[in-house]
Amino acid sequence: MWNQIPKDRLKAMHCELEEAYEKLCAKGLKLNMSRGNPGPDQLALSMGMLRDWPGNQPDAWIVEGGADARNYGLLDGIPEAKKLMGELLDVSPDQIIVGPQASLNLMYDALARAMLYGVLGSTPWCRLPKIRFLCPVPGYDRHFRITEKLGFELISVPMNENGPDMDVVEELVKDETVKGIWCVPRFSNPSGIVYSDETVRRIAALKPAAADFRVMWDNAYCVHALYPDAPQVLNILTECDKAGNPDLVYEFCSTSKITFPGSGISAFAASPANIADQKKWLGIQTISYDKLNQLRHVRFLRNREGILAHMEKQADLIRPKFELVQEILRRELEGTGIGRWSDPRGGYFVSFHSLPGCAKAIVERCRKAGITLTEAGATYPYGKDPDDSNIRIAPTFPSIEELQLALEGFTLCVKLVSVVERLSI
Amino acid sequence: MWNQIPKDRLKAMHCELEEAYEKLCAKGLKLNMSRGNPGPDQLALSMGMLRDWPGNQPDAWIVEGGADARNYGLLDGIPEAKKLMGELLDVSPDQIIVGPQASLNLMYDALARAMLYGVLGSTPWCRLPKIRFLCPVPGYDRHFRITEKLGFELISVPMNENGPDMDVVEELVKDETVKGIWCVPRFSNPSGIVYSDETVRRIAALKPAAADFRVMWDNAYCVHALYPDAPQVLNILTECDKAGNPDLVYEFCSTSKITFPGSGISAFAASPANIADQKKWLGIQTISYDKLNQLRHVRFLRNREGILAHMEKQADLIRPKFELVQEILRRELEGTGIGRWSDPRGGYFVSFHSLPGCAKAIVERCRKAGITLTEAGATYPYGKDPDDSNIRIAPTFPSIEELQLALEGFTLCVKLVSVVERLSI
Repeated sequence: MWNQIPKDRLKAMHCELEEAYEKLCAKGLKLNMSRGNPGPDQLALSMGMLRDWPGNQPDAWIVEGGADARNYGLLDGIPEAKKLMGELLDVSPDQIIVGPQASLNLMYDALARAMLYGVLGSTPWCRLPKIRFLCPVPGYDRHFRITEKLGFELISVPMNENGPDMDVVEELVKDETVKGIWCVPRFSNPSGIVYSDETVRRIAALKPAAADFRVMWDNAYCVHALYPDAPQVLNILTECDKAGNPDLVYEFCSTSKITFPGSGISAFAASPANIADQKKWLGIQTISYDKLNQLRHVRFLRNREGILAHMEKQADLIRPKFELVQEILRRELEGTGIGRWSDPRGGYFVSFHSLPGCAKAIVERCRKAGITLTEAGATYPYGKDPDDSNIRIAPTFPSIEELQLALEGFTLCVKLVSVVERLSI
Repeated sequence: MWNQIPKDRLKAMHCELEEAYEKLCAKGLKLNMSRGNPGPDQLALSMGMLRDWPGNQPDAWIVEGGADARNYGLLDGIPEAKKLMGELLDVSPDQIIVGPQASLNLMYDALARAMLYGVLGSTPWCRLPKIRFLCPVPGYDRHFRITEKLGFELISVPMNENGPDMDVVEELVKDETVKGIWCVPRFSNPSGIVYSDETVRRIAALKPAAADFRVMWDNAYCVHALYPDAPQVLNILTECDKAGNPDLVYEFCSTSKITFPGSGISAFAASPANIADQKKWLGIQTISYDKLNQLRHVRFLRNREGILAHMEKQADLIRPKFELVQEILRRELEGTGIGRWSDPRGGYFVSFHSLPGCAKAIVERCRKAGITLTEAGATYPYGKDPDDSNIRIAPTFPSIEELQLALEGFTLCVKLVSVVERLSI
């Protein structure tokens, strides 16, 4: 443990590390681990979707029920896409709206509608003096930013190994200005945590003071396991029904990390009342989303089994990257006490915690050496990590060779900044 | 002229027309002229877009600048799509945001953003006690509905043969609660009117009391001429610059009626300040729109010349339909004084005016005979035509044979309802 190393030795280490860092910088690296981008090999898995449909089949564009997917209509999606996304989420197709190219838009739109029109007839949130929103931390920066820019006050809720600390959540929802919570239930971004059955049941049984409180259940990584034995998550809509809370949750997912980021299809799942409410407003905003892309996805992925088989291929490509990250972190940092990190069973990230007060400096050192990480603090509301400790590592985009260079550079920066921190204590 | 026909003769005509109507109903027609849907022959023109790209070319998905269109990024569109849509609107690519599958979403989002965040730093509209919006009539029902559902008070402005009555508009914008106006400058929906140069210049020179007043310039039919000599419209953004009013206008267009409705690409064009403002908020809502569809469109349409050549093929398919509508309307109704109608040089609609008080009854009679028209009143704010006179005819979707049956049925219903109206005077 580095906190037991005497100051003289730390000083010597500092010199060695600075020397190594200079050499690292001299390499002129240009590596990016900032966002959860799939690698080109992952994207190649879905090229058949673009190439094989519509082919030369006559009437390839006619959907179930006889509509022409090339023309206007079918606000909530083509029947076969509703079925596919329903299978993905284990929800009836009637409780699905197939959405645009990515689910972030759906989440934004759902909250923008709450602001403009209210939820199931409630007072539009924009007319209320204050809205608070719960943000389990560390979490997804783009979630937090939507609610920040809409003017909500963001309240951090600590995550534990089972999901958000439900004692804290149950207490906070007694405040009627608290209108919702962000959740990534399986392979949370960035911690990789999978919500336990008890957590899911306690969320489903919440009795918020605000009747228009909504759980934003972003099931972004619902089929994104790295290992076949990765933990599953209970079906939140079923649990809400059981708890007599059918309208509590808006669920979201997309094929962004199944097929193509930004050119996928997304889905909104909720109770019949919520679906009807959303469709009412959606029909003002659009005539229909891209039904040709829906059909393309249905023909390529076919059904839940097709999706799972495709996701096994994805896992085969990225599992070695996640394992390499673990290997290097263990080799370089295990037993030092200057860092701890997640070892996720799925998802897109490894969450790293440095010594308090070091994350920004580590990210900055990496940046100067040509290694781009997600900005330190990004995983907290307002981009402010109170401990300046969390760093999100996204290992999927670089090649194995690049990833090795990047992780070795990263661990060097962790050591260097930690030594400086120890010396200044 | 029917108003000179004696009552006895009208009664006899009534009997004959009722008899003819019974025969019409017995045919069991099922014809739809309600929406501006392209016909299947028009959709077939764009099948190459789906079939030819990406083919087996290596790196077909790499865009100008080297980004991979299959991955995240490029919020405002791939460079070549910005260029294509810029050529379509005669605007610099820097002043273009390439949008989602249809431009209605872009218009909705622009106004929703004004509500939530204001315009270029103005007070968010949702905090203001009253918002008024100008609606030239007859106009597009989906436009009016966006502003109605956002809670604005809609003010009808009469259209004349040159566009909105600018004397009225110039007077109304002196009211600072008036925040915008809907415009379809070329081949207005439904009248087919093309805004004159003077109208465009007077719009560009407007000095509204509200600094955050915006002209919603929906250039939906910018290249949708039926005849090569169809009138052009001045470039509104250039005219705004000349008038010292660069930020006055949000311009919109899409390929919905160039390639596939609902699976096209859309564009937002505006001043650099407006573009920066929109991008700031757009970046909260999404990571990027569907760049593969952008690339598909660029490869298929290539440039402005490619679009114009494609639109000539479209015109060749629908021109005979518009001409058939004119032929039947003239044959059946010319000189009767019971109807007047537009003879547009482009766009998707023929606007019909019946005797006052007859439109609803005509549409209802048609409906019972299996001929679906746009609901009477739809072309006015709140769906209320004060004269109950305007009916929108959308001739593109039916085949020539169906269109003939539909128009003959329609003119029969016009006569029948008009006779009843005359008899009850």
